[in-house]
Amino acid sequence: MNFEEFKNCGLRRSLDILSGKWKPLILSCLFEEDKVRFVELWRQMPRVSKKVLSEQLKQLEENDIIQRIEVYNFPPEVYYTLTDRARKLGPILNALHNWGNDLNP
Amino acid sequence: MNFEEFKNCGLRRSLDILSGKWKPLILSCLFEEDKVRFVELWRQMPRVSKKVLSEQLKQLEENDIIQRIEVYNFPPEVYYTLTDRARKLGPILNALHNWGNDLNP
Repeated sequence: MNFEEFKNCGLRRSLDILSGKWKPLILSCLFEEDKVRFVELWRQMPRVSKKVLSEQLKQLEENDIIQRIEVYNFPPEVYYTLTDRARKLGPILNALHNWGNDLNP
Repeated sequence: MNFEEFKNCGLRRSLDILSGKWKPLILSCLFEEDKVRFVELWRQMPRVSKKVLSEQLKQLEENDIIQRIEVYNFPPEVYYTLTDRARKLGPILNALHNWGNDLNP
C-alpha cells in the first residue's frame, strides 16, 4: 500500500472523522435529540470548555457530519443537527457502543 | 452526564481503542491475513518507523485487540493475530470502511 492508498482507505477516513475526545458524546447527544442548541450540548458534557466544544463541532461540520442551523429570531438561535451522511452511521455507532460496553472496565 | 459516565461510555471506549494513525491499517491487515509477522506488517505500511509501529501494536495488545505470539524457533519468530474480541468487530469495521469510501475525496 502506498501513501495515497493509505490516505484514501475508507476505514482510516471514517475513524479519522470520528476520533476526537468529545465527538462520541456529541454524536450520542445528536442521535438522541435530533436537534440541539449549543448551550444544551455544552451542559451535557462534563469538563469541556466552550472553545474546545466549538472546535470539535466545527470539525464535524467540515466533515459533513453535522449541520449548523441559524434561526434569525431575537436573540438569534443556533442549532446543530446530524446530516443524512451521519444518520447512516447510526446502526454502526450503536454496534460500536455495545462492543465497547462489553469490554471489561 | 458526569465524568465517570463519560469515561465508561461504550462508544467513547471503542473509538478510543481504534483511534491511532496506523491502527486502521494494522486491523485491515490482520483481518485479511489471520496472522502476520512484524516485518510483514511493517512492509505493508507506508512511511512508518518500526518504533511507532511497535508502539501502536503494544497499545492494541494492551487493549486485548491483538495477541502477540512468540514461536521459539531459531531464529525466534513473532506473530500478531486478532483476539476473539477483535473478531467481533469485523462486520462493524467493514461497515465503517464502506461508509468512509462513500465520502467524497
